[in-house]
Amino acid sequence: MDIRDKRIAILSPVAWRTPPRAYGAWETVASNITEGLVARGWKNVTLFATKESITKAKLVGWIERGYEEDKTQIPLVSTCLHISRALERAGEFDLIHNNFDFLPLTYLPFIKTPMLTTIHGFSDPDILRVYRSHKDSYYASISDSDRDSELPYVATVYNGIDLSNLTFRATGGEKLVHYGRIHNDKGTHLSIELAKKAGMDLIIAGIIQDQNYFDTLVKPHINDSSIQYIGPVNPVQRDALLKEAYAVIHLNLIPERFGLVMAESMAAGVPVIAMDLGSCREVIVDKKTGYLVNNVDEAVEAVGKIDQIDRKDCRRHVEENFTIDCMVSKYEKVYEEIFRREAKEDK
Amino acid sequence: MDIRDKRIAILSPVAWRTPPRAYGAWETVASNITEGLVARGWKNVTLFATKESITKAKLVGWIERGYEEDKTQIPLVSTCLHISRALERAGEFDLIHNNFDFLPLTYLPFIKTPMLTTIHGFSDPDILRVYRSHKDSYYASISDSDRDSELPYVATVYNGIDLSNLTFRATGGEKLVHYGRIHNDKGTHLSIELAKKAGMDLIIAGIIQDQNYFDTLVKPHINDSSIQYIGPVNPVQRDALLKEAYAVIHLNLIPERFGLVMAESMAAGVPVIAMDLGSCREVIVDKKTGYLVNNVDEAVEAVGKIDQIDRKDCRRHVEENFTIDCMVSKYEKVYEEIFRREAKEDK
Repeated sequence: MDIRDKRIAILSPVAWRTPPRAYGAWETVASNITEGLVARGWKNVTLFATKESITKAKLVGWIERGYEEDKTQIPLVSTCLHISRALERAGEFDLIHNNFDFLPLTYLPFIKTPMLTTIHGFSDPDILRVYRSHKDSYYASISDSDRDSELPYVATVYNGIDLSNLTFRATGGEKLVHYGRIHNDKGTHLSIELAKKAGMDLIIAGIIQDQNYFDTLVKPHINDSSIQYIGPVNPVQRDALLKEAYAVIHLNLIPERFGLVMAESMAAGVPVIAMDLGSCREVIVDKKTGYLVNNVDEAVEAVGKIDQIDRKDCRRHVEENFTIDCMVSKYEKVYEEIFRREAKEDK
Repeated sequence: MDIRDKRIAILSPVAWRTPPRAYGAWETVASNITEGLVARGWKNVTLFATKESITKAKLVGWIERGYEEDKTQIPLVSTCLHISRALERAGEFDLIHNNFDFLPLTYLPFIKTPMLTTIHGFSDPDILRVYRSHKDSYYASISDSDRDSELPYVATVYNGIDLSNLTFRATGGEKLVHYGRIHNDKGTHLSIELAKKAGMDLIIAGIIQDQNYFDTLVKPHINDSSIQYIGPVNPVQRDALLKEAYAVIHLNLIPERFGLVMAESMAAGVPVIAMDLGSCREVIVDKKTGYLVNNVDEAVEAVGKIDQIDRKDCRRHVEENFTIDCMVSKYEKVYEEIFRREAKEDK
């Protein structure tokens, strides 16, 4: 039997539409996997998502709109109804690929179909109690660094990004760029410190996730000339922003889980200066597509060496590792491995 | 087969110990049902609760302490692990009596054992989506008034109260008493208005659930003589408080679901003046154990007629309807009805 005839259920969250209109990281990945499988010739793919979701696979859903888009819904009510009804149909599938956190795992004792859970993040260490209760299930991590030591992962599968609206430019701009959530974890204030020390202009973009942090450590430095804040950017605005970029600064203060910003920057040919924490060293090739640093002073030094980076290497690194097709092709291998293990068990 | 040989699982919440040390309304009911069944000769009762819970039945649990008593726990993590593991053992029971809200219902498609859910309250109208998705399950309401019109209830089973620490006194005190949560829903400010209009002293007791409400509508009237606030009361303090009571005032502004305060007051022989909303007319016998009113002026009138109430009637009404034994004996009939219906279906 051709593996692509296998019946796959992709379980997406119901916080947002799949794919989301704007925000919705997990729904984005679930959509990319679903559409990617269809594009690669999988014939029996079912997406469990909100009813208004859009897919070339078969769509099944019960929740009209995402609970983040319709605040009359209690999130847990929509969540548990969605999961329960999807898993009630488990017997119709050869594999369930769960992209919706820990709650689906608690239905595992009642179903026979194997489940692969991509752990998109640990919102709190306590959710490990659920994963560790189901060590006989299958897990994928989104980077080697974002793993729990006790869980038996099948593989790491990096998130794939959509390369449209990420124009490669062989020549860089003249400014430093910091984009993503404005939060202490992302070290926005360190980007400002770096820009001042390096004597370069800085553009900051992204949603303000911690208003107090923004007000005290970011806003006082904004002067609309050397330090600018332009708010959140959509993909088209992001592309224009990256055109300005000499380098993207990513001085995160906590371990990065994957680092979408880094992959997007490199896709546009922009080298990244990143703190050597978490997945950064998996996403960046040090000295080839950017620089890994340990503090602001090392980052200043790295700015001085940006012209040693060939921007074509940045783009190529993304094309070879972080496209949607890379991600889906890796998931195909993971599915294959799961089918192999299940067949063995059946004997 | 003696019905009392049937294997019953009582599913208690894991927010608090069962029974709770202080707060924990649902855990209190779950404990009262469990211990009541054992006391009435049921031989195979299993209580699913926190591991430190106390019962004469068989205790099964996985969560060490209640998540309200150990804030390192994510409530949903403990909740879904507790429910999933309990229901994994569904096959060992003839009936599961769920006292833990809507989430257990979403595991119903995967188990064969019938489940009775006592709906202790609708925290939000949206949770009805889950109940209405499982209309083939069994429901008990805690009053005839607290029902959803679409659900097929088996019966109303009133909460039973523990009569220890509720001393009957044939002669009343001289003050009006208002106790319970201090919140607009409970009409604490109306008790104050009533006391002033009736020219009587008022003692207010209970936790402040809405500080702003307390500060603006209650606190300005407290003078430590005619209007006193004494904070929350434990059962021993409650008994002393009810000794002072000429009548208990319960001018709730939203429909009462059941009304523990009314049952406790009557148990001590204290008549209750209550707003005619929700379950109040099910708990009070108008003109015999208290008065149902529609506004403060009617309540003033009722105060003038309190001496027409025989306090022994109040106590008797509780003994005949709202004891733990009444509740458990009613649940026995509900269980019997469920077994009868299930046996019919099996044919």
